[in-house]
Amino acid sequence: MPSRYQWPNDRPGSCVLSVDVDGEVPHLWQSRDSRPRLAELEQRRFGPRVGVHRLLSVLDDHGLRASFYIPGHYAHEHPSAVVAIAEAGHEIGLHGHLHEPPTALTKVEFAAALRRSREVLATVSGAAPTGFRSPSWDMTPESFEVLQDEGLDYDSSMMGYDHPYLIGSLVEVPVQWSLDDAPFYRYVGGSAPGNPPVRPRDLAEAWCDELEAAARFGTLAVITVHDWLSGRGAAAAALDRVLARAADLGLWRATVAEVADWHRHREQQGVLPSPTQVPGGTHE
Amino acid sequence: MPSRYQWPNDRPGSCVLSVDVDGEVPHLWQSRDSRPRLAELEQRRFGPRVGVHRLLSVLDDHGLRASFYIPGHYAHEHPSAVVAIAEAGHEIGLHGHLHEPPTALTKVEFAAALRRSREVLATVSGAAPTGFRSPSWDMTPESFEVLQDEGLDYDSSMMGYDHPYLIGSLVEVPVQWSLDDAPFYRYVGGSAPGNPPVRPRDLAEAWCDELEAAARFGTLAVITVHDWLSGRGAAAAALDRVLARAADLGLWRATVAEVADWHRHREQQGVLPSPTQVPGGTHE
Amino acid sequence: MPSRYQWPNDRPGSCVLSVDVDGEVPHLWQSRDSRPRLAELEQRRFGPRVGVHRLLSVLDDHGLRASFYIPGHYAHEHPSAVVAIAEAGHEIGLHGHLHEPPTALTKVEFAAALRRSREVLATVSGAAPTGFRSPSWDMTPESFEVLQDEGLDYDSSMMGYDHPYLIGSLVEVPVQWSLDDAPFYRYVGGSAPGNPPVRPRDLAEAWCDELEAAARFGTLAVITVHDWLSGRGAAAAALDRVLARAADLGLWRATVAEVADWHRHREQQGVLPSPTQVPGGTHE
Amino acid sequence: MPSRYQWPNDRPGSCVLSVDVDGEVPHLWQSRDSRPRLAELEQRRFGPRVGVHRLLSVLDDHGLRASFYIPGHYAHEHPSAVVAIAEAGHEIGLHGHLHEPPTALTKVEFAAALRRSREVLATVSGAAPTGFRSPSWDMTPESFEVLQDEGLDYDSSMMGYDHPYLIGSLVEVPVQWSLDDAPFYRYVGGSAPGNPPVRPRDLAEAWCDELEAAARFGTLAVITVHDWLSGRGAAAAALDRVLARAADLGLWRATVAEVADWHRHREQQGVLPSPTQVPGGTHE
Repeated sequence: MPSRYQWPNDRPGSCVLSVDVDGEVPHLWQSRDSRPRLAELEQRRFGPRVGVHRLLSVLDDHGLRASFYIPGHYAHEHPSAVVAIAEAGHEIGLHGHLHEPPTALTKVEFAAALRRSREVLATVSGAAPTGFRSPSWDMTPESFEVLQDEGLDYDSSMMGYDHPYLIGSLVEVPVQWSLDDAPFYRYVGGSAPGNPPVRPRDLAEAWCDELEAAARFGTLAVITVHDWLSGRGAAAAALDRVLARAADLGLWRATVAEVADWHRHREQQGVLPSPTQVPGGTHE
Repeated sequence: MPSRYQWPNDRPGSCVLSVDVDGEVPHLWQSRDSRPRLAELEQRRFGPRVGVHRLLSVLDDHGLRASFYIPGHYAHEHPSAVVAIAEAGHEIGLHGHLHEPPTALTKVEFAAALRRSREVLATVSGAAPTGFRSPSWDMTPESFEVLQDEGLDYDSSMMGYDHPYLIGSLVEVPVQWSLDDAPFYRYVGGSAPGNPPVRPRDLAEAWCDELEAAARFGTLAVITVHDWLSGRGAAAAALDRVLARAADLGLWRATVAEVADWHRHREQQGVLPSPTQVPGGTHE
Repeated sequence: MPSRYQWPNDRPGSCVLSVDVDGEVPHLWQSRDSRPRLAELEQRRFGPRVGVHRLLSVLDDHGLRASFYIPGHYAHEHPSAVVAIAEAGHEIGLHGHLHEPPTALTKVEFAAALRRSREVLATVSGAAPTGFRSPSWDMTPESFEVLQDEGLDYDSSMMGYDHPYLIGSLVEVPVQWSLDDAPFYRYVGGSAPGNPPVRPRDLAEAWCDELEAAARFGTLAVITVHDWLSGRGAAAAALDRVLARAADLGLWRATVAEVADWHRHREQQGVLPSPTQVPGGTHE
Repeated sequence: MPSRYQWPNDRPGSCVLSVDVDGEVPHLWQSRDSRPRLAELEQRRFGPRVGVHRLLSVLDDHGLRASFYIPGHYAHEHPSAVVAIAEAGHEIGLHGHLHEPPTALTKVEFAAALRRSREVLATVSGAAPTGFRSPSWDMTPESFEVLQDEGLDYDSSMMGYDHPYLIGSLVEVPVQWSLDDAPFYRYVGGSAPGNPPVRPRDLAEAWCDELEAAARFGTLAVITVHDWLSGRGAAAAALDRVLARAADLGLWRATVAEVADWHRHREQQGVLPSPTQVPGGTHE
């Protein structure tokens, strides 16, 4: 059995809340060659209009700072939402420009979207993002290279461990499908509506179980919610209960950037194994 | 955080029950160029034969008036069901003529279906509908224009907020997928049967959670049921419990038209922001 | 509100258990032009080998007679299973010969399959079936005509009411998707595996809710299970609990043929409305 | 009713834990003609990196030996994981070389993959596997022939009974979809993500129900978990509870090989019926 991961102040495990602040941008990407569905645009625009603000309010109740991953186009379209996030002291990270999947882009296209989104986020929020979350939670060897070339500190899109690890020179802060609200809540109607939405009370209970497991096994639980999904009524109330549980369990509650910094700190102390190669990559 | 929406008599939130009275009409539209499935026709005709009457009985037990959206063809085929709805004092709204999705029609076709359905509903029910619910819960800029040109007061098909808002000159009374029974109950067999039906007891509990969230966040919960789905035994019994919870929570229970009137009243008092543009539209 | 349906001895409602005894036959039909999957054949052959016998044992514990719908080919392949059903005193009904969907057959083909299956079932079981359950729970106007021409007494495949009704000269004893185990349990692997199986404990609770609703609204609950699905361990134990609940509620527990006889009896007393036309049919 | 299956020491039933140790190998097979998805590779590599070791730890807590089915390529890529399994005293069985579905291979190809995987497993683990688990839980007549020709003792891929049985000269130790974690937990994102993951607490409760049914009906419950699925936090904790329940119920807890040996022993005592033919096969 690999040894248990060590957390600051001997915390039993760690819980991070991340928000993929997508709004309507994924649908604009998906319908870039066709006519967008007004229904889905409106459903998703609930995010910047209402959802983000409700999530900020819930976070404020818990005194918790989270990590918000924001496509560049979202910041351009909804700057006041982004300013509200920044002013509340949360981390802002990169999430593509038009929520483009890295697997759909050439290396040059990926680099261009990354730079463009970094510029607009820095301009609107006043701070330079240091981390990336893939819009599709998928990557390519080339997109990992770009993240390194552009000097980013971490990625948070892979699932290779349940604690931070190294991919090349980047810290990887891993996500997990069962801790993402999208597979459970996303239902958009039309010809490919998705599965019927799971009940927020059931998802909250499942996430509390994962937090208990994080304390038991010493792991990292990166929860991910979306502005247009968990910003809705019962879902926001359920998230409120999950955050309370994370505090009760004594987990280390931090931003993704803080988790990456902690791992970098441990790495520099020489307590970590050698880095994992870029997965599937051929350039090392 | 945007300010909390204000409801009449300082009610904490609002709960509306709407009924999409579809019966077999959607299947007639879907199979307009092929042979209809008898199984689905019969399953859906349970609605006008039994389901509508059971829902009316449950509503009567709660002294609640609801909003019924009825395709014109349904009124033509099942006039006694429509008369029963009207005589019980419920609101009757437009829902296309053959349950046509607005996205499948030209502007002229949409206008023709709207006028035709309005005529038959007015004839059968004796009252002129003032609101529209899209059969597919999707719209186009052109169909919004028609609603305005035809002098309707409100639409109830979009999800851009969780309180009423303005789209052009129309009041939008927003719906929500998690408050619609169709994603959870619709199962029709054949080659594309749908997901296995969710248990009515579970859906009722989820809806009660949404009603609690409406009271907590001051929002509007527009529940939507279907004659051929929630008119079934355990589903009707579950709806009964949900309506009791809405009363217990002190929510403002109103028809969609009353909610639209309330919003118009507030707008005329100048307490609202400027109208939202028709989403994605180019005509303003 | 249509008046409440009357049951024998003023029972509050009725509960029927039907068994679609399919075994491997549906897969033989589906793969008639290709190579069958051994995995699905074996999974389904659990039905005649074990499942049927376990269901018979559960029924025996409750002193309950049920209605078993059996494809002719099944009786040919697994005669001892059919004999065991007949010797326990249960009703045996028609279910196609190779589990052919009526919608896939011409009128002549449908009649041929019906006659062939009737012969083999009569030979193996020693009794002449009087009712039909469509293998696909779908019908055509032509297949309804054949049922009438062949002198059958009832069909049990449609969902137009939640009490018996007349289609042409046939009594229709309606089924209901939420009372069928297949949408919840059927999972066969391969390229189109189906949804993950629902927990038997959850389905049993849902069915108990439907039985309570049958008592509340005076309706008929026709439960349908399959030999290869509900004959499995936890599913059979769950069915056991459902049957106990039906007895506790005081529902009239009968076979489908007995329900059809009851309806015919009431019809002849002139207490029923005029028959429903064959749905969608043009021949009347 | 067929007579109740007899277990050693009059145990009421039997519970076996099997682990399909797939890691990334199924995705390598599926993407053999295209570019693999890095996201899925990383998600699956969680198995050999973390999941296997966590499962071994849970098993150790219960003093339970399980049966691990391992593709040859996995042993080649992750030998230390295989060594850890072997050193803990668990059974190691065959599972293809690159997780190839037998239905996609010719007889010669299947035999080649079998021999190659047997060699690498024997080399890495130091013991010769005696049983086979089909990677796709499907078989062909030809692949059954190869298992016999190669002198294997048992197969564990079919579902024809819920106790051991004979297929040709092989003992079949049957599996069951509802006792496999993959239909419930597998969610991989991308264009065909799968159903939203089921909650580990719900699956564990369902499996405990199946174990109770095994004790009630005298059957065999072969649970199957995957390194990259049930090795995750809350899933591993849930499995822990299931294993405790198996002990409480007094079930015979054995490896698949031990169950096969028991059945062979009973067969040689002449207490069993004649063997089942290779299902669908034409070669006997």
